[in-house]
Amino acid sequence: MKLALEQAQKAYDRDEVPVGAVIIKDGQVIASTCNQVIKANDPSAHAEMNAIRDASRHLASEFLVGCDLYVTLEPCPMCAFAIALARIDRVFFGAYDPKMGGVESGPRIFNSSSCHHKPEVYGGLKEEECGALLKKFFASKREK
Amino acid sequence: MKLALEQAQKAYDRDEVPVGAVIIKDGQVIASTCNQVIKANDPSAHAEMNAIRDASRHLASEFLVGCDLYVTLEPCPMCAFAIALARIDRVFFGAYDPKMGGVESGPRIFNSSSCHHKPEVYGGLKEEECGALLKKFFASKREK
Repeated sequence: MKLALEQAQKAYDRDEVPVGAVIIKDGQVIASTCNQVIKANDPSAHAEMNAIRDASRHLASEFLVGCDLYVTLEPCPMCAFAIALARIDRVFFGAYDPKMGGVESGPRIFNSSSCHHKPEVYGGLKEEECGALLKKFFASKREK
Repeated sequence: MKLALEQAQKAYDRDEVPVGAVIIKDGQVIASTCNQVIKANDPSAHAEMNAIRDASRHLASEFLVGCDLYVTLEPCPMCAFAIALARIDRVFFGAYDPKMGGVESGPRIFNSSSCHHKPEVYGGLKEEECGALLKKFFASKREK
């Protein structure tokens, strides 16, 4: 999660919503990236989606079996369903997102009837640090 | 939808789940693509996601305001939430997907509290043709 936070800081420095994500397989980092929606002109370029794409490319497989995802914010419904499609084993997230989250909030994707793979989920890891960076970002936006 | 069906046939010919998607703005086709999960080694490379990425790149914007999406199958929760994030105006889909759909089935993304943009949705366009191609694909898989 420390590495994911470093990635979130990179997004912050580029004026993107500061979320970072890392994917680990067999103790090795196989993807480490951040939110790039503005940079990439791509509404789907959330940190988790970018990490899943990078890791899939790295493994030359559409399935990320045996992989763990660390992300600084609770995944939204899009990312949560992509996590399920990729068959990721475990998800560790930092801050909870009651407004746009899709794991513990809203549609609770992993418990929905459309979802055919349910990873283990651990929320609230380094929650304060992850949340503080997001709060700082949105506070700076309101000041502008 | 005819163009989306042609794209779905392209996916079929490449042994991918046959789904095609097209995005229209001001009467012009700005994206026309198909499911490429296997080809791209990317679990997120559903037809709708590829179309959204292509259209966003084309418009150099993360928002697809004023755009309509045509897709041969009911979007899954990932694609439905991406459609909301992209602020697409209208969604026209072909076959319903009670197993993995996320619009009329499962988490009904556009009605969830995490979803902050709700497009107009029209389901069942050329439903029989869209569904027939999918059925043919899955029948051929079962024979193997």
